[in-house]
Amino acid sequence: MSSMGEDEVSSFFESSPPLKKMEDILQKLNGFIEHNSSGGRRRIVCVTSGGTTVPLEQRCVRNIDNFSSGNRGAASTENFVKAGYAVVFLYRSGTCQPYCRSLPDDPFLECFQFPDNTNIQVHASHVEAVKMAVMDQQAAVAEARLLKLPFTTIYEYLQMLRLIATAFKDVGPCSMFYLAAAVSDFYVPWNSMTEHKIESGSGPLDIRLAQVPKMLSILRTNWAPQAFCISFKLETDSKILIDKATKALGKYKVHAVVANELSTRKEEVVVVSSSGNVVVRRDSDKPEAIVEDNLIRLIVDRHSTYIKESHT
Amino acid sequence: MSSMGEDEVSSFFESSPPLKKMEDILQKLNGFIEHNSSGGRRRIVCVTSGGTTVPLEQRCVRNIDNFSSGNRGAASTENFVKAGYAVVFLYRSGTCQPYCRSLPDDPFLECFQFPDNTNIQVHASHVEAVKMAVMDQQAAVAEARLLKLPFTTIYEYLQMLRLIATAFKDVGPCSMFYLAAAVSDFYVPWNSMTEHKIESGSGPLDIRLAQVPKMLSILRTNWAPQAFCISFKLETDSKILIDKATKALGKYKVHAVVANELSTRKEEVVVVSSSGNVVVRRDSDKPEAIVEDNLIRLIVDRHSTYIKESHT
Repeated sequence: MSSMGEDEVSSFFESSPPLKKMEDILQKLNGFIEHNSSGGRRRIVCVTSGGTTVPLEQRCVRNIDNFSSGNRGAASTENFVKAGYAVVFLYRSGTCQPYCRSLPDDPFLECFQFPDNTNIQVHASHVEAVKMAVMDQQAAVAEARLLKLPFTTIYEYLQMLRLIATAFKDVGPCSMFYLAAAVSDFYVPWNSMTEHKIESGSGPLDIRLAQVPKMLSILRTNWAPQAFCISFKLETDSKILIDKATKALGKYKVHAVVANELSTRKEEVVVVSSSGNVVVRRDSDKPEAIVEDNLIRLIVDRHSTYIKESHT
Repeated sequence: MSSMGEDEVSSFFESSPPLKKMEDILQKLNGFIEHNSSGGRRRIVCVTSGGTTVPLEQRCVRNIDNFSSGNRGAASTENFVKAGYAVVFLYRSGTCQPYCRSLPDDPFLECFQFPDNTNIQVHASHVEAVKMAVMDQQAAVAEARLLKLPFTTIYEYLQMLRLIATAFKDVGPCSMFYLAAAVSDFYVPWNSMTEHKIESGSGPLDIRLAQVPKMLSILRTNWAPQAFCISFKLETDSKILIDKATKALGKYKVHAVVANELSTRKEEVVVVSSSGNVVVRRDSDKPEAIVEDNLIRLIVDRHSTYIKESHT
């Protein structure tokens, strides 16, 4: 990585608005890591999920958003917990939550009733979804297998990712980054941003966006060089997808790139790595099966191999 | 209004991607209006809430979003229902819902428990919030006092607003538009939009955005000229707020403009109308009071006067 890359990263962080509640986040994070390592749960993964926003105004009304439902990250988190991992779930506020994927869009309108004005009941059709959302989620959080940390802007996301990577350093090869979040490629540098709301009413609006420095290189080389690292590549054009994923693999030196196309992403993904490309599909004979069941199984296997090789 | 304005509006709608489930929306809407008018509930209001998105790509990954929590629209909806109105709540997916404002951010993690693995319970500290979210909301929907219709993009929002306005025509002066949604001022015309994801990696990105035609004029003059109409003006700079609200009042010929400043909007708003400016404040001696309690009381009074004057 060129020193120019590092300069860009430093200047990005220096000009970022400072992270709120940083002490609180750090305390939760360190407590979570300590609890798991002393409890013998050796493996820990940071799953990032949902899209980041890029403010166009300092007192933000307008922003550019990278759309992502967060479904992939939430489903993967459940599978990592099931596989025995401690999971730091770094998610965009308001996106899909682990154990809540089967709830209807408007759960309070559709799932519950108070038949006698005092005791709440769950409609029979939603009992399993609500039990999962409440019991499984609470158990995972209460037993410190799941720590949920929300972000909204690209500034919050990258500062929190840096905190987590730094905190994971001592875990070494047993730590993993599973970077499913849709991170903005372009942003308006905070210092060049207008303070107030952009005025409308005088013709077209031209916006110039700068590239967000590629933090993945820094994560790999500086922040957490021993961690196993999986990144994602989403494209809408299947013709360029594998090529772009392969280039990302070489450029950022991650251990695998999960390539997915927008329209088929719930059916199949391709895991691109130096040992070749593997197509991972949903078990289509089981209606409740999701592609993440097989994807996480493969990733966990690869992580096991990586840990073994790191110790020899 | 100039014919150029109308041309812009026609071309906006002609180039918009068609609304999905339009028949279904129309059926719900007409059933709701009929049920209320035949049931003797004379007044109906369309409350718009949350921000619209503007896609930057046809197969949308990136979009420009106007941030709005939807709190104002949700709180106003509850107050309109209480005042005897039938409410069509046209809201941005994922934003704050009526009767759900007091729930914690992560309600399934914080509100519920399954103490004996079969019967769900609400934690004592959240009983009131959950009862409101479930009972009051279900009652309002079941008795057809509340119809909830979600949107995401500016295309969906404007097409749905047009449907509602057209459906309200027969209700005449008893109908109201309370336009609290944060609507995008700028957009990328669908036809000039790139189909695939914008590629990163080659320097800064320049985006040219066109102005969204001002639909408020068309709503007032063509779609629903007899409806009572309230629009909103949000600014971050208090110095220009009242001036901009006053200009909007004259330009769009609405019956009042609710002026609010981003940092103080939960404490006070100014209702700007041809009869002068009225500052409306939250009752600060009651901790649970919200500014919408007093705002909706004022708006309902104004609407009563308007109905009376229309009949003389």
